[in-house]
Order: sequence, then C-alpha cells, then structure tokens
Amino acid sequence: MWPKTALIETLGIRLPVIQAGMAGGITTPELVAAVSNAGGLGSLGAGYMTPQQIREAIGFIKAKTDKPFAVNLFIPERERSASSTIDSSPEKAARHTAASYASEIQRMKTHLQPYREELGLTPSTEPDFSFPDFEQQLEVLLDEHVPVFSCTFGAPDVETVKRMKAAGMIVMGTATTVREAKVLENRGMDMIVMQGHEAGGHRGTFLHKAEDALVGVMALIPQAVDSLHIPVIAAGGIMDARGIVASLALGAEGVQMGSAFLTCTESGATTAYKEKLINSSDESTTLTTAFSGKAARGIRNEFIASHENYDEPVPPYPFQNALTKELRAAAKQQSNTDMMSLWSGQAAGLATTCSAAELLSSLNKEVESVLSRLLL
Amino acid sequence: MWPKTALIETLGIRLPVIQAGMAGGITTPELVAAVSNAGGLGSLGAGYMTPQQIREAIGFIKAKTDKPFAVNLFIPERERSASSTIDSSPEKAARHTAASYASEIQRMKTHLQPYREELGLTPSTEPDFSFPDFEQQLEVLLDEHVPVFSCTFGAPDVETVKRMKAAGMIVMGTATTVREAKVLENRGMDMIVMQGHEAGGHRGTFLHKAEDALVGVMALIPQAVDSLHIPVIAAGGIMDARGIVASLALGAEGVQMGSAFLTCTESGATTAYKEKLINSSDESTTLTTAFSGKAARGIRNEFIASHENYDEPVPPYPFQNALTKELRAAAKQQSNTDMMSLWSGQAAGLATTCSAAELLSSLNKEVESVLSRLLL
Repeated sequence: MWPKTALIETLGIRLPVIQAGMAGGITTPELVAAVSNAGGLGSLGAGYMTPQQIREAIGFIKAKTDKPFAVNLFIPERERSASSTIDSSPEKAARHTAASYASEIQRMKTHLQPYREELGLTPSTEPDFSFPDFEQQLEVLLDEHVPVFSCTFGAPDVETVKRMKAAGMIVMGTATTVREAKVLENRGMDMIVMQGHEAGGHRGTFLHKAEDALVGVMALIPQAVDSLHIPVIAAGGIMDARGIVASLALGAEGVQMGSAFLTCTESGATTAYKEKLINSSDESTTLTTAFSGKAARGIRNEFIASHENYDEPVPPYPFQNALTKELRAAAKQQSNTDMMSLWSGQAAGLATTCSAAELLSSLNKEVESVLSRLLL
Repeated sequence: MWPKTALIETLGIRLPVIQAGMAGGITTPELVAAVSNAGGLGSLGAGYMTPQQIREAIGFIKAKTDKPFAVNLFIPERERSASSTIDSSPEKAARHTAASYASEIQRMKTHLQPYREELGLTPSTEPDFSFPDFEQQLEVLLDEHVPVFSCTFGAPDVETVKRMKAAGMIVMGTATTVREAKVLENRGMDMIVMQGHEAGGHRGTFLHKAEDALVGVMALIPQAVDSLHIPVIAAGGIMDARGIVASLALGAEGVQMGSAFLTCTESGATTAYKEKLINSSDESTTLTTAFSGKAARGIRNEFIASHENYDEPVPPYPFQNALTKELRAAAKQQSNTDMMSLWSGQAAGLATTCSAAELLSSLNKEVESVLSRLLL
C-alpha cells in the first residue's frame, strides 16, 4: 500500500507522481493524458507555446482524459526580477531587452555561425526575440478551467495566484532553495516542487545565481519540509520506486519525474535523444547555459563542450534561446546529437522504454516491494 | 525494527550508521569510541596524522571501547595517479613535487600574506610540505589489528587491499561516481561509501576533475547499487532518520554521516565552528579549493570568497594545504570563522548539539517512526 499523502487528496490523483512539464514538444497531449489516465498527474510543458497552441493542446488532452492534469508556464523575466530580493531594481528589469544585449548577441551570432553551417542552415536571419505573452497564456488556462497551474523561473504575484485559485485551480511553484520556496509560499501557492541539483533541464532558480542554488534532494527536502507549511514535492534524479520511497521518507508528499517520462513511447523526444538518455551514466550530464542562456542540466555533447571555451558572456535567457532556436531545431531534425539539447537528470541511465501506463503500473508495484524490503 | 542490512552483519555493529572519518582533529578518540559504543561505527580521521599519533589515538579508542571502529587514511597522490585511467602517466606522478609547483607556490605565498598578517602571524616561515608516510600508517593499522580500514582520495593497490584483508580487516573505499566505485571493487574492497554532491569536506574524487563528479545521492546510489556486487553506503546531506530511511530505500546498506557528528559534544570541532553549522541553511555551503588545493564543501566565508577572485592557479593538494596550515590553525585558535575551514554538508543546519550516544539513540527511535509514517 502506498502512503496516502495529502498531495494525492488535493490533486485528486491515485499515485503521488507528477510528470514534469518539460517544454519544447516533449509533453505531447498523448503523454499528458496517458499519465493522468494511469493515476499520476500529467503536465503540459507550455512555456514556449502561444496561447492558441496551448488552447489546442488542452483540447486534445481533454479529449483523451477526464482526469486532472497540469499546465506548466514560465514566469517572465519581468516578474522574475520583481520577485527577487537580489535583482529587484526596476532599472535591471527594464534593461532586460534585446537592445541592451546587442554586443553580446552580435558576438554570439558570429560564434554560432560555424555550427549553423555544419547543419546546413542558410545565412542567419534575424532571430525572433518575441516571447509568448504570459497574461494571455494565463487567460487560456482560466478559460479552459485547467485543474492545476504549475510554473517555474520565478514567483507569480499574489494577485495572479489568487485569481487562479479563485477559478478552482491548484497552484504549484518550483524552488531550488528554501528561501525561494518561502517566497512562493508567501505568494499563496498550494504546493511546491523542490528541484534538486540532480534534476534535468532548466534550473528553476530565481533568487540566486544558478551555481549558488545546487542543493541535492537528500539535503533539500528535509530542510524545505521543516520550513514550509504547504506540501513539498521532490524532483531531481528520481527514476524508479526506490527514488519515490526515498522522497517520501525525506518528508515529500510526492515526486516529480522528468527523465523517466522522456523515454516513454508517448513522449515527443526523438529516438536519437531517447537512446542517448538510456545509454547515459552518472557522469554524462553537466550544467550549461549554451543552449538558452539559463543554466540547465543536459548530456554533455560537442555543442556544450565548445561553449565551455567561449570567453565572452553568453546572452541571458531568453535571448540565447532565440539565437540557438533554428540550430536546435535543425539538429533535432537531423538526429544530430552533437548539437541537440539533450536535457537529462543525473540518473537517466535508469530509464526504460515503455508506455506511460506501463511505467506507472510498474512503479506502483515496485513501491510495495521497496517498502517490504525496508521492513524485513 | 531496522532493516537488517548485510552491512550490520559484516561490520558487527547494531545500527548501519558510520561516523565519517573527518580529519584535522575532529574525530577525537572520545567521539569514535562513543559512536562505536552506541552501536554505530566510529572512525578516526587519520589522514594527516603521523604513525605515532595514530598509534596513540588507537590506544585511547581501545581503552574506551571493545566494539569495532574504523581508521580512515588518505591514498597518496602517487597511488592516486597509478589508480587513475586519466592521469596515469608516470611522468605526471613524478612531477607532483613542491619544486614542480614553485611559481604557483610563490604567488600563493604573496596572496596569503595579508591574511596571515590579519591573524597576527609572524613573517612566513618555509611551509612543511612533508606528508605522513602512507606505508608506515598502514603498518600501524596492521600492528594494532584495527577492525575496519577506510580510505579516500584514491584506490589502494590490490596487494595492499589483500594484505589488510588477510589481517582480518574490513576494507572500505570512497567513490563519487560509479566508475570510481568499480575501480575500488576491482581492487578487492569489501564495501564502498558513495559520496554524493551534498557531502561536506573534501571530495573523494580520483578519476575525474572534481567538478565533473558532483552526483547527488538520489541519483548516485541506485546507479551504484545496480552496477556493483558489494555493499554501498550512502553519504552526503544525511542528517537524521529521514535521510537514513531514504538511503536504505535507494538501495544503500547503510549511511555515513559527517556534519551530524561534528556538532556532537565529543567532537573536536570548536564552539565557533559548531555554531556556524547549526545556524547554516541550504544556501550556506560552496565547493572551494582555497584551503587545501583539493575541492571540498564548506560554509562560504571571507577566505573562500576572496579566493574566488584569485586569477592564478591554486597549487594542488597537498601543497596548498601546507601553505594554509598555520593560517587555519591561527584562525581556529582565535575563533575567527572568516578564515577557518568550516567543512559542512548541504543540510548541516539540521544538526543538534548532544552526545553521540544521544544522537544515535534518537536516530534509532526516529527510524521506526519514519518507517511507520510510510506505511500509513
């Protein structure tokens, strides 16, 4: 029997397992619905999606499941600055435009040119620095009565949290330190995903430099649980029932798993990417800003390695992200794993290829066997 | 009831809890004996000790307990080079002398001078770059029939492991990646401490650059357990019964705890150091080479911060360690926490001040309550 955590009751799910809202086409409506149908909480990674794309994806999800699911959005840099106690000057927030990084962007374009050529891309067009409007994204979630709103990269303001909760949504934030978690709790969040050092993909850090907020799950969860009044969800390096039971032992009410769902048949990850994940080891990943300008954990490849020798400042997110967008798309299309962003946690080598339903069913069974092993 | 791990039987202890062999006067014979008497495995951190000092300390420990205990030694750089698949050239090993780092050492002396003056140290004398002889240290362990030999910073050769085992010792190594653990297993080790990213003090890394081997416990333990045939002990960020049960769930046979024992009444840590540990948070620590030339996790202070702007290469261990020895001793004596090495894991803020026996007794009780929470 699974421990009956408050999370399960609040979210109306059967297993305290959240499939992470990985952005960039990974979380297909099929994956989200399959996870929710199997008793977990599927999440649409909608950070990069336009309001219209989000609306369509939600429609597909609703057509496939009547169970609760989440939509994950990125808190814009503007909000990020406002929520930070470190970088809170309005000047700093105002400066965050492409024009203010013109020289960094120009140098990076030159640096990226040989990679573009290697991928057969035509001479660089002007990158699109526009970003989906956060307020319009929120409106879609409200319109569509999405059951759970999760977010990362910052803290939505108190008014936004109130509005989403008033519409019946559960609101879930992402933190990488106890201090960030307290900010989110104070904004009125219902629960918080604590993202450990082990986690794949982008760091959710918003009050610190990324390198100052790399706390491992083992250390992070008990300290968060002791400091917060709302449920804590563990994330980072959790790949199987061992990690789930460990997280619950640490005091988490549930887990969020990314890499484990990346290799599922329903995931939007390419075959080449899935193979890299399954063949990875504990040594395979590193933190890099090469792809997006924001620190993220992925499998080290040629593109990351070459950026380690780039002596100039990498333009910050979302500008670097825009600069590498075409390149990443071409690499993905050509199954060129030397150039693709291969986001991955530190234990992705434990992943298996199966359907989301099979994964959740085996997790369900294995949790019981881990628990009985502990009691012998 | 605790899960009965193979570790408990092999080591002849009651609780699968090893007190880490922290060097530098922390692991007093009183601490080691108190831990062993209370059912755990106490460890003397003897890496920096002369053979004669080790012999005396073992005598004190034996006078206070008839239970098993460990003595922890550092594998010398010479062995480290021989055990490495990366730096295995004999030339590289031969180059590892103070003379070959003369210019780095000279620049560092100049850099350290203001700190020495701040601490009232007389003009720099020639630092002592000599190091206790590893072979002679081993002879003491053999002479004294020490029950457990544990080591870090490398892999002892097969002959050494054989000799220690033939004398009835249990031999325990330290690894930070699965690849390192396999090297240790192949040398004939009985069990392996897997040191996660969260751990305080020096990284045991010996096959990689330190920054390439920072795997969190959540990701490290399951991958190690799946790859090894010998028992795995989890280390890093484990401060209480939640961490112990989590480690066992991940597949470890037991845990090694450092920071939790640092604040015990019997530990050799100064009051100023203990206060810093108890008042630390998940944000407090960082990895630094400032004190010893080898990456280690400690509470960030002025000395560490100032080294972050030092643009020259820091002389490698053990040379930097020798260069800062007087300075560290003076800072410790003056309770100057701005200059002391404050080694600490990422969850030391969860530490409490009590005797080692009280700590182990409360861990014992709390493990049962964590287990029953999981079964509700």
